[in-house]
Amino acid sequence: MAEQIEALQKLAEQFARLPGIGRKSAMRLAFSILELSDEEAQGFANTILEAKEKVHLCPVCQSLTDKEICSVCGDLSRDRSTIMVLEDTKAVLSMEKVREYRGLYHVLHGVISPMNGVTPDKLRIKELLSRIADDEVGEIIIATNPTVEGEATAMYLSKLIKPFEIKITRLAYGIPVGSDLEYADEVTLYRAIEGRRDI
Amino acid sequence: MAEQIEALQKLAEQFARLPGIGRKSAMRLAFSILELSDEEAQGFANTILEAKEKVHLCPVCQSLTDKEICSVCGDLSRDRSTIMVLEDTKAVLSMEKVREYRGLYHVLHGVISPMNGVTPDKLRIKELLSRIADDEVGEIIIATNPTVEGEATAMYLSKLIKPFEIKITRLAYGIPVGSDLEYADEVTLYRAIEGRRDI
Repeated sequence: MAEQIEALQKLAEQFARLPGIGRKSAMRLAFSILELSDEEAQGFANTILEAKEKVHLCPVCQSLTDKEICSVCGDLSRDRSTIMVLEDTKAVLSMEKVREYRGLYHVLHGVISPMNGVTPDKLRIKELLSRIADDEVGEIIIATNPTVEGEATAMYLSKLIKPFEIKITRLAYGIPVGSDLEYADEVTLYRAIEGRRDI
Repeated sequence: MAEQIEALQKLAEQFARLPGIGRKSAMRLAFSILELSDEEAQGFANTILEAKEKVHLCPVCQSLTDKEICSVCGDLSRDRSTIMVLEDTKAVLSMEKVREYRGLYHVLHGVISPMNGVTPDKLRIKELLSRIADDEVGEIIIATNPTVEGEATAMYLSKLIKPFEIKITRLAYGIPVGSDLEYADEVTLYRAIEGRRDI
C-alpha cells in the first residue's frame, strides 16, 4: 500500500480545481499550506470566506466590488458620458492600471459563445441597455477581447445600441508596443495596416 | 482613484505568499475563488483548516501523516531492516509512486545549510539515530538530493551512523532515463562514468 495522506490529497485536489494549477503544482501548494503556522492557515481560510462574502456585483456597472457601489461608479469626478464595455472585472483592473481612461465601465461577464452555451441573455446586456436609456451617455467603447467571440459580441452589441444614436467605438488593433513585426500574426498585421494613421 | 477591491486584493496576497505563485497568477486564482459557489468556497476553506489540523509528523519516521502512525510505518509487510533517509515528505510520496522500495523511511525535514541557519540540530537526525540504536536496522539508504547541501548532509549522516556498523548506501547518480548525453551537465556525466556498471 502506497503512502496516502488523505487530508493533504484533498487539499491538493482543491488547488487542482483552480485554473492553471496542474497536479504537481497543486501538491506543492498543499504542502506549502502545511508549512504555514496555524494562524496563517486560519488567516488564509478566513480570507477566502471573506472575499466570497464581501465581493458582489456593483449594481450599476456589474463589476465586482466589496463596496455598495464600486469605486469607479461612485467617483463623481469621472466622465459619466462614456461607458467602456468589458468582458470581465479583470479587464477593468487592467484598464484602471493605465490611469488614462476617465469614463465608466460596464462588465458583461463573458462573451457570446453559443458553443459554450453562452447566449446573449446570460450576459449583462440588459443592464447596459437600461444604463444607455436612462443616463446621458454620449459614447460606448466596446472593448471585448479581439477573439472571434469578442468580435461577434462587439458586432451584436453595436447593432443593439445603434437605435440609441450615440457614438460607438472599438479599441484600436495593431502591433503591440515593444513587439517585433516578425512575431505579429497575419490578422494583427492586416489590422495594423488597415488602421494605419498619419504621422 | 483606481478601482481597488480590497477583499479580492487580500485574497490575491494570500495566494502570492505560496511558493511559485507570482502576482499575476495570484490575482487570477483570487478571481477563480470568487467564481466558486458558496459551498465550494466553504469547502476550500474547510479543507485548508482540516489539513492543518489533521496532518502531523509520524512519531516513527517523521513523515507527514493524518493517521496516528503513517501508513508505511504501520504496514507490517514492509522490510523493517532498511531505512531510506529523505529530505522531505514530498520525496516519500515520489518514492512510493515507484512501488519498488519496500523498506521504511526517515524524513529529515531539510538539509544542513548553515548559510540558511539550518544546523544539524534543526533536522530530525536524533530521531534517526535512536531508531538505528533501537531496531534491527541492517541498511541506511541516504537519499538526500544531489545538491551541495544534500551531499554535505549525506556525508555528515554517514559519519554519525558509521559507529553502528551497518550498511550505509547512497542512491545511484547518472544520466536520467530518456535523457540525452548532450543535455547532461558535467558533474552528472562524471558521476555516470564513475558509477559505470558491467552489462
